[in-house]
Amino acid sequence: MCELLGMSANVPTDIVFSFTGLMQRGGRTGPHRDGWGIAFYEGRGLRLFQDPAASSESEVAQLVQRYPIKSEVVIGHIRQANVGKVCLSNTHPFVRELWGRNWCFAHNGQLADFTPGVTFYRPVGDTDSEAAFCDLLNRVRAAFPEPVEVEELLPALIQACAEYRSKGVFNCLLSDGDWLFCFCSTKLVQITRRAPFGPARLKDVDVIVDFQAETTPHDVVTVIATEPLTENENWNRYEPGQWSLWRKGECVAQGSVDTVTETARP
Amino acid sequence: MCELLGMSANVPTDIVFSFTGLMQRGGRTGPHRDGWGIAFYEGRGLRLFQDPAASSESEVAQLVQRYPIKSEVVIGHIRQANVGKVCLSNTHPFVRELWGRNWCFAHNGQLADFTPGVTFYRPVGDTDSEAAFCDLLNRVRAAFPEPVEVEELLPALIQACAEYRSKGVFNCLLSDGDWLFCFCSTKLVQITRRAPFGPARLKDVDVIVDFQAETTPHDVVTVIATEPLTENENWNRYEPGQWSLWRKGECVAQGSVDTVTETARP
Repeated sequence: MCELLGMSANVPTDIVFSFTGLMQRGGRTGPHRDGWGIAFYEGRGLRLFQDPAASSESEVAQLVQRYPIKSEVVIGHIRQANVGKVCLSNTHPFVRELWGRNWCFAHNGQLADFTPGVTFYRPVGDTDSEAAFCDLLNRVRAAFPEPVEVEELLPALIQACAEYRSKGVFNCLLSDGDWLFCFCSTKLVQITRRAPFGPARLKDVDVIVDFQAETTPHDVVTVIATEPLTENENWNRYEPGQWSLWRKGECVAQGSVDTVTETARP
Repeated sequence: MCELLGMSANVPTDIVFSFTGLMQRGGRTGPHRDGWGIAFYEGRGLRLFQDPAASSESEVAQLVQRYPIKSEVVIGHIRQANVGKVCLSNTHPFVRELWGRNWCFAHNGQLADFTPGVTFYRPVGDTDSEAAFCDLLNRVRAAFPEPVEVEELLPALIQACAEYRSKGVFNCLLSDGDWLFCFCSTKLVQITRRAPFGPARLKDVDVIVDFQAETTPHDVVTVIATEPLTENENWNRYEPGQWSLWRKGECVAQGSVDTVTETARP
């Protein structure tokens, strides 16, 4: 299995704190030694750092940890391989261009007997995760050859995720740099930090940050992860089948494929 | 204008030496301050480092310089902006997936009145370079929906490059991780290093490397650049209209769109 990390914020925010916690689980406090990756949107551009080496020992990970890249949307992943060998082309997150935007995807779980037909987007590596991402984009492109708002797209995304989930475990993060979509098949937690900000203490390493000192009263920052990254905050645990859509740190839509109740956007 | 750097080698080779020379031209010995990028193939995977900041001052560039990533194909670029503002999405090299492989492209020059129709691949940023890359891939995909060998593809690549060149200046590097293609519109130089190896001295900074100590007798490494990077070696200068195709450090095809003489592959 793997661990996911996502962020959506209303101001360019660095994710050094959360990443510092996550990377410990890549070989030190967790077994996810088979590579890691993190993608930072900068406007429409995407900065992707990846390494098939364990994050706790990776020189590139140390750079990312030192280097406060500020971004409004981030997707990160640490990998414990089950399908596909350990190599760069099997390392999440995966990226494809659709409608002139960089779409980025990371997956936690595995899919059994998953052999989607290849049409346009094709996997470069041999993971079930990248195959699912390509299949998802192929569906979107087939349904919407020209760009549409994510709200129009959402039913197609949710239906695809529900299908993938029926073939195994499918927790995922997906973004086009504007919005961040997440789907919980088994395990996903979320926290939204806003004023008044307080201190937070990482679970995996002895680091405390005082968000009060690093933020303005208008900042809204949502972090989504497989397991809580801090030990003194209340993380919201998703139910299986729950999905949500975030923009600028705020939830703009959420629902569940099991209960078929979807809340309207504010 | 910009500067290009390409490498094709028959063994995984680090490009730290050439990159160290090139990055000086990004603000120190040259005017190419508007970003830089370098892509290293690792098998079918691609490791991409980019920064809209000047390479001579970039922390990510310092990491790349310290970090001997070994690769058989590399494409690098430093940018002096003419079309498109300075931002990450306008930073070369550009990457797209085609036929389940990562295609990577960098361009030196500019194109006038270049507004290709968008079909499948679409630019994320607003450079003429990325527009040309997308147009090139759209042509390839239209002509060859399923994978073909590069030799079969070559006439289409050359014809597209000749057309782009008629609209301005179009020096470029293109790769799918297996082969490296280059096209010279105005300026491109190349050197192939093989046994017996000797010392090389960079032009832009006081660094000497003794390739003898770092290679085996079977290594073949070709470097392609806009201007020679070393001052004690003979670089082969391309004529306008010349193109060449490299695999594992060796030239497998070359020719010119002006003289219509193409040499056969060995």
